[in-house]
Amino acid sequence: MKLQPLGDRVIVRPLKAEEITKGGIVLPDTAKEKPYEGEIIAAGKGRIRDDGSVKALDVKVGDRVLYSKYGGNEIKMHDNGEEVLIMHESDILAIVK
Amino acid sequence: MKLQPLGDRVIVRPLKAEEITKGGIVLPDTAKEKPYEGEIIAAGKGRIRDDGSVKALDVKVGDRVLYSKYGGNEIKMHDNGEEVLIMHESDILAIVK
Amino acid sequence: MKLQPLGDRVIVRPLKAEEITKGGIVLPDTAKEKPYEGEIIAAGKGRIRDDGSVKALDVKVGDRVLYSKYGGNEIKMHDNGEEVLIMHESDILAIVK
Amino acid sequence: MKLQPLGDRVIVRPLKAEEITKGGIVLPDTAKEKPYEGEIIAAGKGRIRDDGSVKALDVKVGDRVLYSKYGGNEIKMHDNGEEVLIMHESDILAIVK
Amino acid sequence: MKLQPLGDRVIVRPLKAEEITKGGIVLPDTAKEKPYEGEIIAAGKGRIRDDGSVKALDVKVGDRVLYSKYGGNEIKMHDNGEEVLIMHESDILAIVK
Amino acid sequence: MKLQPLGDRVIVRPLKAEEITKGGIVLPDTAKEKPYEGEIIAAGKGRIRDDGSVKALDVKVGDRVLYSKYGGNEIKMHDNGEEVLIMHESDILAIVK
Amino acid sequence: MKLQPLGDRVIVRPLKAEEITKGGIVLPDTAKEKPYEGEIIAAGKGRIRDDGSVKALDVKVGDRVLYSKYGGNEIKMHDNGEEVLIMHESDILAIVK
Repeated sequence: MKLQPLGDRVIVRPLKAEEITKGGIVLPDTAKEKPYEGEIIAAGKGRIRDDGSVKALDVKVGDRVLYSKYGGNEIKMHDNGEEVLIMHESDILAIVK
Repeated sequence: MKLQPLGDRVIVRPLKAEEITKGGIVLPDTAKEKPYEGEIIAAGKGRIRDDGSVKALDVKVGDRVLYSKYGGNEIKMHDNGEEVLIMHESDILAIVK
Repeated sequence: MKLQPLGDRVIVRPLKAEEITKGGIVLPDTAKEKPYEGEIIAAGKGRIRDDGSVKALDVKVGDRVLYSKYGGNEIKMHDNGEEVLIMHESDILAIVK
Repeated sequence: MKLQPLGDRVIVRPLKAEEITKGGIVLPDTAKEKPYEGEIIAAGKGRIRDDGSVKALDVKVGDRVLYSKYGGNEIKMHDNGEEVLIMHESDILAIVK
Repeated sequence: MKLQPLGDRVIVRPLKAEEITKGGIVLPDTAKEKPYEGEIIAAGKGRIRDDGSVKALDVKVGDRVLYSKYGGNEIKMHDNGEEVLIMHESDILAIVK
Repeated sequence: MKLQPLGDRVIVRPLKAEEITKGGIVLPDTAKEKPYEGEIIAAGKGRIRDDGSVKALDVKVGDRVLYSKYGGNEIKMHDNGEEVLIMHESDILAIVK
Repeated sequence: MKLQPLGDRVIVRPLKAEEITKGGIVLPDTAKEKPYEGEIIAAGKGRIRDDGSVKALDVKVGDRVLYSKYGGNEIKMHDNGEEVLIMHESDILAIVK
C-alpha cells in the first residue's frame, strides 16, 4: 500500500531518538510550538496555480527536515505499525543537510 | 437517486472496519484531528476560476482516500441506510494506492 | 409577490417530511452541521466578477438540493405561510438527481 | 437635507407593519439572524474597482427589499422623526417584486 | 499647526449639538454601533493602488458627513482645545447635503 | 550604531512633554486607542510589490507624526538611553506640519 | 550538519548578553511584544511568487538584526548546544548597522 499526498502535502516519518542523537538537533523544553525532525517519505505534485501551472515542492522524498507539528495529521501504517504525519509543505521549516 | 456535488466538493463513503484491516491504516488514539479512510463515490466538476476555466479535481470516483473529518457534512442515504460525507476536496489528504 | 435574490443568492424551500421519504436522504443524529434537502424556488443572476462578467449559478429554479443550514436567513411568506430560506449558492452542497 | 451614501452603501427605510401585511413576508420567531423588509431611499454610486471603473449597484431608489439587519447603522431623521438604516448593498438579500 | 492625514485617512470635527439641531439627524438610543455627524477638516491624498496610481477620496474638506465611530482615533488640538477624529474614509457612511 | 528598518517599517522617537506643549496635540482621557506624537528617525525602503517595484513610504526621516501605539515594538537605545518604537507605516496616522 | 530554511524563513542566533552590551539596544520592561537582537546564520532562497520568480530576502547571513520573538520556533543544535530560532523574514524588524 502506498499513500499519494494531494497538492502541496507531504508525508513525514518522525525520526526515532537513536536516529537524531548523532550531531542532530534537540528541542529545548521552553519552546511553545516545537519543531521536530523527520524524513519525507511521500510528496504531492505541488500546488496548482490559478493559471494551471504547478508550483513544485521544495522538498523531495528522502529529505531530512525540521517540521512544525502544528497542523499535521497523524496516521499509523498497518504494514509496519509506523506512525507518520501528513502535513502541508508550509509546515516544513528547514531541510537538514 | 443520485447526488451531484457542487464545485470542488466530493462525497466520500467511509470504509468499514473489515475493509480497512487488510494492510491499511490505523489512527493512533493521540491524534487530535483524525484523518479517516474512505472511497470517493461522487465528485463535483471542480472549482470554476475567475476567468471561467475549470480547475478539475485531483480525485475521481472510486479513489480510496484519507480524509480529514473536519469540515465534512454527514448524510444518511435512504436507499441503503449508508452514511456518507460531503466535503471539499481540500479535506482529502491523500490517495491510498 | 415575488422575491428576486441578489447576486449569488438563492431561495430554497425546505422539503416536507412526506416529500423526502421516497428514496431520499436522512440526516443522522450525530451530525454537527446538518445538511438539509430542499428545492430552489428563486435564484440570483450570479456573482459579478471584477471584470464585469457574470459567473452564472450552477443551480437553477426547480433543482432539488442538499444545503447547509449555516448562513441561511429564514423568511415566512404571507401568501401561503410557507417558510423558505435565502442563502448563498456556496451553502448548496449537492444537487439531488 | 439629503444623505448621499458612500460607495456601495444604501439607505433603507424599514416598512411599517401596515405596509407589510398585504401579501408580504413574515419572519418566524425561530430565525437567528432575521431579514427585514424595507425600501431603498438612497443609494451610493457603487464600488470603485481597482482599475477605476465603477461596479454599479443592483438596487435602486424605490426598490422594496429584504435586508439582513446585521451590519446596518440606524439613524433617525430630524425632518420627520423617521428611523432609517445605512448598510452595504451586500446586506440586501433580495428585491421584493 | 496642521495635520496631513496619510493615505485614505480623513480628520473629522464632530458637530456640536447646536450645529446638528437644524433639520439634522438624531441617533436612536437602540443603535448598537452609532453613526455620528461631523465635518471633514483634513483629507489624505487617497489610497495608492498596487500599480502606483491613486484612488482619490470621495469626500473633501468641508463636507458634512455621517461617520461610524468604530475605528477612529480621538485627538485634542492644543490651539483651540477642539477634539477631532482621525479615521479611514471607509468609516464615513454618507455625505450630508 | 544605526538601525535600518525592513520593508515598510519606520522608527519613531516619541516626543517629550516639553516638545509637544507648543501648539500641539493633547490626547483626551477617553480615547480607547490613543494616537501619539513623535518624530521619524529611520525609515525602510518601502514595500516591495509582487512585480518587484517598490512602493516608497509617504513619510521620511525628520517628519513629525501622529502614530497609533497599537502594533509598535518598543526598544531602548544603549547610546543615549532613548526609547524608540519600530512600527509599520500603516501605524502612522498623519504628518504634523 | 547544516540547516537550509525553506522559502522566506531565516535562522537567527540570539546575541548573548556580552555581545549586546557594546553600544547596543536594551529592551524596556514595559514592552508587551519584545524585539530581540540576533545574527542571521542561515537564510532561505526567498518567497516564490505566483509567476515563478523569486522575491529574494532583504537580509543575508551575517546580518545583525532586531527580531520579534512572536512566531519563531526555537531549536537547540547538538553540535554546540546553541539555541537558535527559525522564523519568517517578516519577523525581522530592522538590520543593526
